[in-house]
Amino acid sequence: MATSPPALAFSVDNCTIGRTLETLGERWSLVVIREVANGVRRFEDMRRHTDIPRQVLTNRLGSLVDAGILRRHPYREPGERERFEYRFTAKGFDLYPVMVALAQWGDRYLADPEGPPVSFTHRDCGEHVAPVLRCWAGHEIADPRDVVAVPGPGAHPR
Amino acid sequence: MATSPPALAFSVDNCTIGRTLETLGERWSLVVIREVANGVRRFEDMRRHTDIPRQVLTNRLGSLVDAGILRRHPYREPGERERFEYRFTAKGFDLYPVMVALAQWGDRYLADPEGPPVSFTHRDCGEHVAPVLRCWAGHEIADPRDVVAVPGPGAHPR
Repeated sequence: MATSPPALAFSVDNCTIGRTLETLGERWSLVVIREVANGVRRFEDMRRHTDIPRQVLTNRLGSLVDAGILRRHPYREPGERERFEYRFTAKGFDLYPVMVALAQWGDRYLADPEGPPVSFTHRDCGEHVAPVLRCWAGHEIADPRDVVAVPGPGAHPR
Repeated sequence: MATSPPALAFSVDNCTIGRTLETLGERWSLVVIREVANGVRRFEDMRRHTDIPRQVLTNRLGSLVDAGILRRHPYREPGERERFEYRFTAKGFDLYPVMVALAQWGDRYLADPEGPPVSFTHRDCGEHVAPVLRCWAGHEIADPRDVVAVPGPGAHPR
């Protein structure tokens, strides 16, 4: 008889991947984060660029500010009232590995034949940026089969 | 007057982050992928472990097989009919950096006080695994502000 997978003995209630997906919400939240990462920081620019409905965009920006991922930064164009643009907090910048990893997978499997529309590059040298898996002992992990999920300090028996 | 962000000149229609999010679909798809990564590969085990409704789980597994992320692998318990378990294809294994990046962010910001429930570790040495950003010239990128999004080969003017 097959042995039961060890993960079955533990609850998924406090899964931090699940919580991350809840915080990033559905598709539009990560689209907004992508826009900010691309330097599109203002409401009207985002709306015209992405065609997100106005109310949805308002809500998503509000949620991302509430979640501490974006912060509002005031600006004023000549002759206009003060407005806000959206910038990453430190918590928002920490999402870069997620975005770069999503982009790498999408670039590999879902890009048009001519290639992806955006490339993440290193500011200093201009070369393409990719995520690498490495353990705290400094070993680089080329094969994902060498990554093993084990119960962590917050594992709750079911 | 502020200069317009360069990204505004390009379409988001073929964004590979957007396409990845469409492929991974909503929350349940990544939950299923997490289960398989945790060694939970069989329908009944996943259903009991996650409380995903039966029909939703059937649909998600079918979509992930159709997308080439999971494959069905036959097994037969003594005295029972042949059934299938779900394993990653190479395309599925390539999602590990996405999962490890999501987990790292969630572990940092959303874990319970006692810590995350799961730790991704290196099979050889047992140390914790984390994603690192590195450019093709070999420079490691500690500060996400040094990652710059530039138009790629598939950029379409709007």
